[in-house]
Amino acid sequence: MTKKATVYDVAERAGVSIATVSRVLRQPDAVRPVTRERVLDSVAALGYVPSGSARGLAERRTGVLGLYFPGFDASEDAPVLDVLAGDQAEVPPFTVEQASADAGAPHPTMLFLDEVLRGAELEAWKQGFVLMIGVGRGDPARETVRDIAGRVDGLMVLAQSVPDDVLARLAQRIPVVVLSGPARGDSYDHVTVSNAEAMSELTRLVLAQADPGGLAFLAGPEDSPDGAQRWEGFAAAIAEAGIAADDVTVLRGDFTRASGRRAAEELIARGAPAALVAANDQMALGAIDAFRSAGIRVPDDVRVTGFDGIEAAALSRPTLTTVRQPMIDLGRAAVQLLARRLEQPDAEPMTVRLPLQILVRESSQRPA
Amino acid sequence: MTKKATVYDVAERAGVSIATVSRVLRQPDAVRPVTRERVLDSVAALGYVPSGSARGLAERRTGVLGLYFPGFDASEDAPVLDVLAGDQAEVPPFTVEQASADAGAPHPTMLFLDEVLRGAELEAWKQGFVLMIGVGRGDPARETVRDIAGRVDGLMVLAQSVPDDVLARLAQRIPVVVLSGPARGDSYDHVTVSNAEAMSELTRLVLAQADPGGLAFLAGPEDSPDGAQRWEGFAAAIAEAGIAADDVTVLRGDFTRASGRRAAEELIARGAPAALVAANDQMALGAIDAFRSAGIRVPDDVRVTGFDGIEAAALSRPTLTTVRQPMIDLGRAAVQLLARRLEQPDAEPMTVRLPLQILVRESSQRPA
Repeated sequence: MTKKATVYDVAERAGVSIATVSRVLRQPDAVRPVTRERVLDSVAALGYVPSGSARGLAERRTGVLGLYFPGFDASEDAPVLDVLAGDQAEVPPFTVEQASADAGAPHPTMLFLDEVLRGAELEAWKQGFVLMIGVGRGDPARETVRDIAGRVDGLMVLAQSVPDDVLARLAQRIPVVVLSGPARGDSYDHVTVSNAEAMSELTRLVLAQADPGGLAFLAGPEDSPDGAQRWEGFAAAIAEAGIAADDVTVLRGDFTRASGRRAAEELIARGAPAALVAANDQMALGAIDAFRSAGIRVPDDVRVTGFDGIEAAALSRPTLTTVRQPMIDLGRAAVQLLARRLEQPDAEPMTVRLPLQILVRESSQRPA
Repeated sequence: MTKKATVYDVAERAGVSIATVSRVLRQPDAVRPVTRERVLDSVAALGYVPSGSARGLAERRTGVLGLYFPGFDASEDAPVLDVLAGDQAEVPPFTVEQASADAGAPHPTMLFLDEVLRGAELEAWKQGFVLMIGVGRGDPARETVRDIAGRVDGLMVLAQSVPDDVLARLAQRIPVVVLSGPARGDSYDHVTVSNAEAMSELTRLVLAQADPGGLAFLAGPEDSPDGAQRWEGFAAAIAEAGIAADDVTVLRGDFTRASGRRAAEELIARGAPAALVAANDQMALGAIDAFRSAGIRVPDDVRVTGFDGIEAAALSRPTLTTVRQPMIDLGRAAVQLLARRLEQPDAEPMTVRLPLQILVRESSQRPA
């Protein structure tokens, strides 16, 4: 029996990317005639048939996928830029400032979303879709998500960014994939990571290095599902090690660097711990700054760990031990799940769990 | 005479954002009926009339703006992620690695574009549009940009990312705004920055600190318009200071950290200069790493400066003196120019120049 031709076979024979093959099948007018002919020749020669119910779906396809997430950008509150109002001749070409290190640090969630977006765009392109993005801000959020949902074939939403009832109504009309957050066991396709398991393992590594008597945990905001899972993972690991919860100092921050700094100052006032496990990188970096200002050395006096794997964690001195989220792959996997759902509308809902990477760097290792 | 009501007046009276007002006028079905009524009441009470030819245009409006840029993501070459092929049960929840600082550093241009995109999305939302993004990759680029152009009311393209003839054809159908790059004096609206002027000023600051006899410049890739302007700014400043071009060591990198490291190693082999002016931050940071490895102190032995103002520049030790691009405002200004063009199709082409911020930090200052 001959193997059925795939889109990869068609692309290889025609000497084009699979994105181009998809585009020829979906939006032939957007492809140059010479390329289109080559692809269609390849389709005919290989007897390629797009899978399942793709043909029926094709007629209502827009070729657009949507990505929706809540807004966290500080710039939203920035002075309104109005380039049309000002006299351009009066704008200086530059200004000079003695700058602090903090100026312009983006919200941690935006750093995460930038990469998710990059992955989603890459995979959408590979599959011949274009990507539409929408960000909810306060009350208008539901309008933005409805607005986008009406223009796309399928929608990716960040966990908890859309109220359950709104999401359920949207999902009746178009495929929805939920990104990140706890597994919900509901009817949506879902791509997520094992926050708790990775935090447990990271905590074990810290416990192997540090005096358990002086352990502190810096939690994220109460309404963060990721933060909650990271706490659970930490709590499981200390329970496993026979450490009572009362013997651990637990503080709460809001995922920003400033809150990490404040937490460290509070710890210093109480007597610095042997180790601080923070629920994200920005708080860990803020804490390291505060320890340094107080003359407390990391990792010599205090071991510190973060979570997320932002670029700054690799660049700080000491470099920060952390858990890297597969952000680009989260975006890519979400698009793959959407594409599958469009081809197979009746397939069982699928939860994909992507592996996390524990990156052991300087901040967590007691000097020999 | 009574002042004509603006969209801001309508929004204030209705107690909603201007994005909601725009959406009611453009996509009434995407807004909840109760909100829609409130906005329409406010429109009626104030006698608000959308400006100029907006009504005529409204009929062919999609409510979508496009942002197109070339692809630079390293992940494009990454192993193909296929979440549908693998047996999920076999994927480990995490892996543990002794990590180097370099792992996963994104391409510098992507860091720039992340913020431009954030600004464009924010302003699009404020004006009641949604944003579609497209990334060109190699040959299929022209197909992607045509594909997107066919789905939007207006298009923003990064300078030099689309061949002139393709851009000219697109511009016959929809408004086009060019982002960044040199002023072209052509028929497009354009938003850019004064790269050369800011680099001249930065060079003057360096010359005021360093021994001019040992000055080096690390240029960007030959095909980068930004890189070319930064070189021009540097060259102008040394000429002004009476320094012969032959007395300056000029090396070329490709904007990556690795190329900065290699350049510094070459400089060290020739005898380290008193100051190194790099055409971007990533190369400057790579150079600082290489100097450190060789036991050469920054800023004590060598002063170093970057350009772009990426987050890593604020976090490095020493912190990096640089020029911050107004990336978010570049995106916002581009959307404002597009919105203006949609309202006033026959207005004169406009070039907006946004100010740069020279951030003086530790790396450029000779210790007292």
